[in-house]
Amino acid sequence: MQPTTQTLHVDLGERSYPIYIGPGLLGEAELYRRHIPGQQVMVVSNETVAPLYLEQVLTALKGFQTSSVILPDGEQFKTLEIWNRIFDALLAQHFDRRCTIVALGGGVIGDMAGFAAAAYQRGVHFIQVPTTLLAQVDSSVGGKTGLNHALGKNMIGAFYQPRCVIADTETLNTLEDRQLAAGLAEVIKYGLITDAAFFAWLEQHLDALLNRDIEALSYAIARSCQNKARIVAADELEAGQRALLNLGHTFGHAIETGVGYGDWLHGEGVGAGICMAASLSQKQGWLTSDEKGRIVAIIKRAGLPVEPPSSLTPERFIALMSVDKKVVDGHLRLVLPQGIGKSVVTGDFNHDHLNATLNEYRRANR
Amino acid sequence: MQPTTQTLHVDLGERSYPIYIGPGLLGEAELYRRHIPGQQVMVVSNETVAPLYLEQVLTALKGFQTSSVILPDGEQFKTLEIWNRIFDALLAQHFDRRCTIVALGGGVIGDMAGFAAAAYQRGVHFIQVPTTLLAQVDSSVGGKTGLNHALGKNMIGAFYQPRCVIADTETLNTLEDRQLAAGLAEVIKYGLITDAAFFAWLEQHLDALLNRDIEALSYAIARSCQNKARIVAADELEAGQRALLNLGHTFGHAIETGVGYGDWLHGEGVGAGICMAASLSQKQGWLTSDEKGRIVAIIKRAGLPVEPPSSLTPERFIALMSVDKKVVDGHLRLVLPQGIGKSVVTGDFNHDHLNATLNEYRRANR
Repeated sequence: MQPTTQTLHVDLGERSYPIYIGPGLLGEAELYRRHIPGQQVMVVSNETVAPLYLEQVLTALKGFQTSSVILPDGEQFKTLEIWNRIFDALLAQHFDRRCTIVALGGGVIGDMAGFAAAAYQRGVHFIQVPTTLLAQVDSSVGGKTGLNHALGKNMIGAFYQPRCVIADTETLNTLEDRQLAAGLAEVIKYGLITDAAFFAWLEQHLDALLNRDIEALSYAIARSCQNKARIVAADELEAGQRALLNLGHTFGHAIETGVGYGDWLHGEGVGAGICMAASLSQKQGWLTSDEKGRIVAIIKRAGLPVEPPSSLTPERFIALMSVDKKVVDGHLRLVLPQGIGKSVVTGDFNHDHLNATLNEYRRANR
Repeated sequence: MQPTTQTLHVDLGERSYPIYIGPGLLGEAELYRRHIPGQQVMVVSNETVAPLYLEQVLTALKGFQTSSVILPDGEQFKTLEIWNRIFDALLAQHFDRRCTIVALGGGVIGDMAGFAAAAYQRGVHFIQVPTTLLAQVDSSVGGKTGLNHALGKNMIGAFYQPRCVIADTETLNTLEDRQLAAGLAEVIKYGLITDAAFFAWLEQHLDALLNRDIEALSYAIARSCQNKARIVAADELEAGQRALLNLGHTFGHAIETGVGYGDWLHGEGVGAGICMAASLSQKQGWLTSDEKGRIVAIIKRAGLPVEPPSSLTPERFIALMSVDKKVVDGHLRLVLPQGIGKSVVTGDFNHDHLNATLNEYRRANR
């Protein structure tokens, strides 16, 4: 079966937009034309992705006044200083308020270009062209944009929705194995939080995904986006249930910040974080040891770390997690599984169990 | 007559908020309590204002977990780098998503603290406590926040509404004369764009305002805020008529950027900019020489510059104005008076008249 283009919709009233998923889409001029109202288009990409795909995108944008800005590649560059280079380019070329910014790259590029679109002249048009699995299934959908601060990940940003998402599945052919695995962490997350049938499908098809079977990848991307679109449509600004999408992320962000941005990939932190959340849930009596075993097993099969780095002490974890965005009036809340396909956002867990979880990995690592 | 507290409303649906205007308000605990939903409050101020008023504000905030961050004073510090100090403070003290940021100072502090509130954890609560005339009549109302870029003023920012504005008229007693004059530029602007009766009142009462007559100042602040609230309510995101509020600002921003931020005060740039707009309008046949004379006369009486600095050539003006936010698809638009109390936003003016206006000041200055 030849996969063809699928179109999903994120339903957010006047901010609604389509997600196009399929092979070869980033060269389709018609898709861009449909969603670009002005004349000027700035493509933001990075040093890894630009040599592979920038020319194709600029060709598809023929007829517009185009320009591009190429940023260094990596989470450690998601800073105010590097972000400012986008404004340097926009202003040097007199881009006005009706311009469109296109993010061509993974999650880091999407976050930086999206926040630049939110802030440039207080808001210009924005299109996501995600080229990693992680960006296609997660970061390009839902409007979260932002930058890191030395003291906390994604602490400076905006909710800002794109006009469309163009997910070209062929770009996954050039993705490094480590990046593919990082994306699978978010795919597995969707199964765990609300979609037990998808989790079971993933257990069956993980080898196909790792072998880059295009049919399996297309299915996993579309199903992930469907899950995300549904959750975001119900809670755009994360007043409640949207926080479920952060399963594994409080632990994961602490790892990313603690070891230094760029050392662990975001998806690697999420993979280990999901295992830590599962371990805490088991101590709470919310997961059977069989369920926990299934979770750790699939993370491991995906090629992801299943425990945090030994350099992070429990004390440091607690300090790093204290600035998590889910903290409310000083109280830490976590996303924790209560079975396969069911998770909750809660501050109502036993802190001795959290400490035991953190200490368990300390022992395991020494 | 003893002026008492007035309450105006900015009507923006679920983002509506009150403006309180009166003497002694910044010490009124009840006003803050009414608008702060969480526990944590960060006061952002500067080195000039903090020694005068910070303690009073912190005393009024007793009962909350308070902290403060003091920034250097001046337009030249409205940068990404200085802005980041607000996040340093928020994160070092574990401020969470339910915190409130209070801007205590003039327009620069309001812009920086407001944009920090818009961006911190993708949005926290915000209160404006303006302590300059300019901030009380203009920048604290309407939700425009932002930072300067080396290539253009206010180019990085957000529309982000406060939960309330607390304008304490007693703070004007400590304002330098130059700052008072800068605020009057924006006050005069309201008369010119839509309120001929107010313009006539200003011509009669300018000496009282310059002598800091509290009754006259209170009236001018409230009437300015009424004008602004009406225009903002009709066009929050500046899709159309809100741009009228930028009378004098395209020329003014070019002056501020061209001479280096902080050399000219914003209101001084606006004062000279209004005179330049009037000169262009007269050439268009939209203003009589009597009307133009009244405009230049009141700007001059207010103690403001009526022409640009001689260091800026017409060529440099054109280059600086080409990145104005009102530029659409490469075409410059300006706010131009068509009589006292009537202005338009238009790209439909004779560019020879613009060039003649810019050259007129070159000759005048040499």
